[in-house]
Amino acid sequence: MSDTARSPDRTCPLPLPHHDRIVLGHGSGGRLTADLVDRLFKPRLENPVLREGDDAAVVPAGALAESGEVALSTDAHIVRPLFFPGGDIGRLSICGTVNDLAMVGARPAWIAAAFIIEEGFATEDLDRIVRSAAAAAREAGVTVIAGDTKVAERGAVDGLFITTTGVGLVPTGRRSARANRVEPGDAVLVSGPLGDHGIAVLAARGDLALQTTIESDTAPLNGLVEALYASGAAVHALRDPTRGGAAAALNELAGASGVCVVIEEERVPVRREVAAACEILGFDPLHVANEGRLLAFVPEADVDRTLAAFHAQPYGAAACRIGRVEATPAGRVLLETGIGGTRIVDMPSGELLPRIC
Amino acid sequence: MSDTARSPDRTCPLPLPHHDRIVLGHGSGGRLTADLVDRLFKPRLENPVLREGDDAAVVPAGALAESGEVALSTDAHIVRPLFFPGGDIGRLSICGTVNDLAMVGARPAWIAAAFIIEEGFATEDLDRIVRSAAAAAREAGVTVIAGDTKVAERGAVDGLFITTTGVGLVPTGRRSARANRVEPGDAVLVSGPLGDHGIAVLAARGDLALQTTIESDTAPLNGLVEALYASGAAVHALRDPTRGGAAAALNELAGASGVCVVIEEERVPVRREVAAACEILGFDPLHVANEGRLLAFVPEADVDRTLAAFHAQPYGAAACRIGRVEATPAGRVLLETGIGGTRIVDMPSGELLPRIC
Repeated sequence: MSDTARSPDRTCPLPLPHHDRIVLGHGSGGRLTADLVDRLFKPRLENPVLREGDDAAVVPAGALAESGEVALSTDAHIVRPLFFPGGDIGRLSICGTVNDLAMVGARPAWIAAAFIIEEGFATEDLDRIVRSAAAAAREAGVTVIAGDTKVAERGAVDGLFITTTGVGLVPTGRRSARANRVEPGDAVLVSGPLGDHGIAVLAARGDLALQTTIESDTAPLNGLVEALYASGAAVHALRDPTRGGAAAALNELAGASGVCVVIEEERVPVRREVAAACEILGFDPLHVANEGRLLAFVPEADVDRTLAAFHAQPYGAAACRIGRVEATPAGRVLLETGIGGTRIVDMPSGELLPRIC
Repeated sequence: MSDTARSPDRTCPLPLPHHDRIVLGHGSGGRLTADLVDRLFKPRLENPVLREGDDAAVVPAGALAESGEVALSTDAHIVRPLFFPGGDIGRLSICGTVNDLAMVGARPAWIAAAFIIEEGFATEDLDRIVRSAAAAAREAGVTVIAGDTKVAERGAVDGLFITTTGVGLVPTGRRSARANRVEPGDAVLVSGPLGDHGIAVLAARGDLALQTTIESDTAPLNGLVEALYASGAAVHALRDPTRGGAAAALNELAGASGVCVVIEEERVPVRREVAAACEILGFDPLHVANEGRLLAFVPEADVDRTLAAFHAQPYGAAACRIGRVEATPAGRVLLETGIGGTRIVDMPSGELLPRIC
């Protein structure tokens, strides 16, 4: 990439004019791999570190000097379809890892992205996906400094998988948010309506008679988390309810912290269309995946400042309080229903929606 | 994992007795996922950080205080077959990332591993693979602190893919080894015979009439790199010749550094069996992948101490010098043949051996 003549303009619609389909040679480590990396990946994900071409990306450790902890998270993305209303696998792969880092209170810094591509995949689709990932990275303020591209024979992989791994830094003096730090007396808040992502992806598959205008919520949540810490609230735990939905996330936290989480059903925000789709399909919205929502656990006294911080952020405008934490029964999640009853919210036991994230 | 009753003994042959095959629910993020992680992954990869169960692994930044640079590398492993003489995808996935970090002079510290598993995959095979990865990590002195498990429907992925991402630390005062730091006057050394991995994997496929006792060289090379730095040699560049073989690695370095690499054919170590297999199949051993060899570029004056350091290490016993670096023609790799001729060693242009790493 030192040869600028080889860097096509960002708006170039077909960066590899001689290969409109990915071939096995693009994963060979030879000339075609170098071509794909130089002409498609590097111009889209433009940054000085990625440009160097070593086996590993190397960055100065200076940024780490002011960090108390380092966070590392990895996520394989196998969603189908690759493009869905409100997002695509590129945006999802960046947001998923950014959010996992943010959920421990870390500031996402660097991302590594590994692509496994099926022979015959349309180069133009790959380009759209990489552009979308690059845009999400810019929005989140992270840089993709390392990558890998492998190509598998036709039939050995369904289109494209992306595994993203992120490194984040918890600033010195910040207490990281952890699954086992939920306390009795905490309030439970959610940053927006639940279930949008799962229903949007399912509808996009077109194999169910489900017509909806719902869009995935896929979004980077690190801005929301920074605003929360800046508000001065004592952040005990954060979790983005992805696979397994809010039910899985809440059960994990209740179990790790040895507390009881009580959710008030009437306060749980679910869009009318999502609720209707869940009704038709027999799903519990608490089991449906989200990719741009977070659950926050803060002391009761910090609820107002938390909501104020969330409401001032684009991805937190609809944030609300949905429940509280009690001491017992430890490890349980309870739902107080509208008619005054209480039921146990269990960990989802099977596969509700395969390949939703 | 705080409940020790749920931690099966390391020698437990079938950690998931009720599921001898992986089902979609193992990737749901619900109860079955937790079960697989708690009963298979965590006991094998045992370490305190992995045990915590947050969205991201969190480690104290203290270790970073004495580092000048941080290295990050990612690699998707799609090798077929999954088990081959001398290794398997588990060992390969750890060694591949350990080596990429070591090749810039970093000490590998933390690994994140993301598994994409086909529905119906044998749990016992997954267990063998995770055990093998764990053993390789112990050998290399790295800890797997973060992971992810996704399950795709039957036919959507060929068995199992593992993407590993590693974080390494370059000690303060150490000059990292880089592709663009090769200099005219450098000697070119290799740590052992070339081509073992590619030929071993190819033979294991059984679809060629190729009978051989060759084993893959898959090995962690960070010990070799530490010994090299400890010898006092000025390390200019290191590269492990994986996909595309030594030909691709040498061309990348020659291009990045703007130098000419001259290899003496008679000095290039290739086992007789590998040479014979290449002869039969029409392969150039310089194009065949290795997973436990490195190329080192050091000043001529440091050759003796480099070889002494390598020879004292288990994976460097057969190290030798194979060439030199000249100023021109810049960006070229030349091979001096036994009969006094010279030919250009080009970057491999197509796919020689799909899914060899």
